[in-house]
Amino acid sequence: MSIVESPVSADTAADTPQDRLRLAKEAARAAARLTSGKKAAALDAIADALLANSARIIAANAEDLARGERNEIGAGLLDRLRLDEKRVAGLADALRDIAKLPDPVGEVIRGHRMPNGVNLEQVRVPFGVVGAIYEARPNVTVDIAALALRSGNAVVLRGGSAALSSNTVLVRVMRDALEARGITPEIIQSVDAFGRDGAKALMHGRGFIDVLVPRGSAGLIETVVTESTVPVIETGAGNVHIVLDESARDDWAREIVVNAKVQRPSVCNAAETVLVLRGAAERLVGPVSAALQAEGVTIHGDETVQQLASGIVPATEDDWATEYLSLDIAFKVVDTLDDAIAHIRRYSTGHTESIITNDLANAEHFLAEVDSAVVLVNASTRFTDGGEFGFGAEVGISTQKLHARGPMGLPELTSTKWLGRGAGQVRI
Amino acid sequence: MSIVESPVSADTAADTPQDRLRLAKEAARAAARLTSGKKAAALDAIADALLANSARIIAANAEDLARGERNEIGAGLLDRLRLDEKRVAGLADALRDIAKLPDPVGEVIRGHRMPNGVNLEQVRVPFGVVGAIYEARPNVTVDIAALALRSGNAVVLRGGSAALSSNTVLVRVMRDALEARGITPEIIQSVDAFGRDGAKALMHGRGFIDVLVPRGSAGLIETVVTESTVPVIETGAGNVHIVLDESARDDWAREIVVNAKVQRPSVCNAAETVLVLRGAAERLVGPVSAALQAEGVTIHGDETVQQLASGIVPATEDDWATEYLSLDIAFKVVDTLDDAIAHIRRYSTGHTESIITNDLANAEHFLAEVDSAVVLVNASTRFTDGGEFGFGAEVGISTQKLHARGPMGLPELTSTKWLGRGAGQVRI
Repeated sequence: MSIVESPVSADTAADTPQDRLRLAKEAARAAARLTSGKKAAALDAIADALLANSARIIAANAEDLARGERNEIGAGLLDRLRLDEKRVAGLADALRDIAKLPDPVGEVIRGHRMPNGVNLEQVRVPFGVVGAIYEARPNVTVDIAALALRSGNAVVLRGGSAALSSNTVLVRVMRDALEARGITPEIIQSVDAFGRDGAKALMHGRGFIDVLVPRGSAGLIETVVTESTVPVIETGAGNVHIVLDESARDDWAREIVVNAKVQRPSVCNAAETVLVLRGAAERLVGPVSAALQAEGVTIHGDETVQQLASGIVPATEDDWATEYLSLDIAFKVVDTLDDAIAHIRRYSTGHTESIITNDLANAEHFLAEVDSAVVLVNASTRFTDGGEFGFGAEVGISTQKLHARGPMGLPELTSTKWLGRGAGQVRI
Repeated sequence: MSIVESPVSADTAADTPQDRLRLAKEAARAAARLTSGKKAAALDAIADALLANSARIIAANAEDLARGERNEIGAGLLDRLRLDEKRVAGLADALRDIAKLPDPVGEVIRGHRMPNGVNLEQVRVPFGVVGAIYEARPNVTVDIAALALRSGNAVVLRGGSAALSSNTVLVRVMRDALEARGITPEIIQSVDAFGRDGAKALMHGRGFIDVLVPRGSAGLIETVVTESTVPVIETGAGNVHIVLDESARDDWAREIVVNAKVQRPSVCNAAETVLVLRGAAERLVGPVSAALQAEGVTIHGDETVQQLASGIVPATEDDWATEYLSLDIAFKVVDTLDDAIAHIRRYSTGHTESIITNDLANAEHFLAEVDSAVVLVNASTRFTDGGEFGFGAEVGISTQKLHARGPMGLPELTSTKWLGRGAGQVRI
């Protein structure tokens, strides 16, 4: 271990979650100092280490899977939990992609010379310590650690207990890979071993955690936002709407609704409710419903939808507020575009909404009035994604208005500071 | 009152703080729709109304002052509380200045065409509802309301109870001026009348308050940050350091320390601690101390400082952590520049630090290693200010790393959203 870059040894046994936070804060100085090249090399080294330790990782994951089966956590969760050789290789590939991303640290965002001659510039700097609380998806462990490292931050991880064995091995492999390159492994911390106390320490880590990113269910996010005394970026919850305007083209309405619902139903940018203008209901409800049903989608419709199509499940009030994340969709007829916008204001989580229209005034009205992170015209809601937006990687999709909104890339994992270079100037 | 822009009448008596939040949220839609010209005209109209109601405002303020004197709140607080004709005119001038600032809303920050042809752009939008909790300074009432309005936001104000009469009249005058121009007065709300319940409603206003800005003492800010479940921007607390390097020029060291302490001691960018490198102590401690003492400053020094200058009060551990906001300063000798940086890491609030040096390597080391919102070389810490930075107005000085860091201008009172215009694209 390099003496210069590893002021804190892994051997000084950290035995409380607060100790791990303290180690991360100390290591953040070393992380911030790493050059872009050194960070990229470290990420490549972690990718190599994951491949070299693939068998060990999969063995640990098998323990989690066996426990998950005993606890009957369900097929969906088991699938998200599972790591096999192909998925480990996928993690390694993702690391190499992140290593290639431009380093946001050091970017000069703006600057000018003050009238008195002081040269001012605002530069991008790492946050310091990024905290992450997430559910039983071991890929998030690697993903968040890599994004934090690329942007010069230390990270404190708290994954779901169902992935404890997998995460323990993944964190050890990543830390060992850093140490082998002479970088302090304390840059990557986990508080998984401390159970709920670990999560609590993160949420109350004032002075240690610079930003906390929850990733997972709406319930997890709500808990973190409500309980935390550290700054949080809310991510993910997506009750996503598509509005079919009177002027909507039949083919675009059908194709976009089907794509937005069916292409990957389990993710936050999948559509959950379709609102159709009354003037287009007779023309569109039948064909759109049939196209959805042909893909196995269950439609929860209001009375008019039930009249205009067959096989419709009656919708209840709950359906308008539900993020199904499954092959279900709510379908409602509204009188006017403003009624559609009012419905969205009431039920949307502010993630993504799209309108299918050929009317310019309606398109612009929708873009201006809908207060969501991403507002689309004639495009699938599935485009709300860091990769699709060209960010190369995605930290998450922010549904709050502070700091970052919508898909977040590496620059969203940084802060800024102002540097001023003078020659004896004082304020008059 | 215009029917279109004033959906909610002031007469539908709002009798809980939550009602006021709800009114603000509804009015935020109208605020976001106001054009730049209309907002500027509204601010000018408020300025006119303040001048026309100057006598009424000063009479209400006299009630607050009389109560303050009875409660013996102290000369400093009384001075901050006081409004006279000149100060009311100053408020009107500030409004006209804010009216002239560029409108941040609608600015296209970045954009590109996705490979599939969807045109993406990220545009600046108002937050929605800005909350403010502050102390007994009635000028803040006008200042925050004006900044919120210029940036297209509704605002919910909670000022100190010692300024209740002044704030009540100021809010009424501002609301009446909006209404007279056909703009819904519900854009400006106050929860002063509800006492502590008003502050609590703001801090727990999830879904209603998009960002909460506390302005005042460190204690107030700490309470707001800890208790709030809405996003907060921490502002203000400034335990500000100046480091005198071995290579510091005598005149710059003396002039900058004196300016940073004396020019306006009661504000957050005033210097509170001077750290001098041991190698420069004999040369600098005497002259810098004498220059400070000539301006009436009490110096709280460590043992070496006590030996090198006369009239020094012995410093205790508390002095290193104190934001005096008065004609007091702490003075300490350190062995190395890294010791100075370590002291800053331990005691600084992350507001502003400056080094006086002629050594390029030391200057760059200080700029890189000090993790504060503003880091200066050979310049007074008093420059950390929205006006000095050329922002035209100042919302406050953020000492957190999320969203905004350092002096905040109008753009820092906005969020963004992504607009995507497609032609039937779906995700493959």
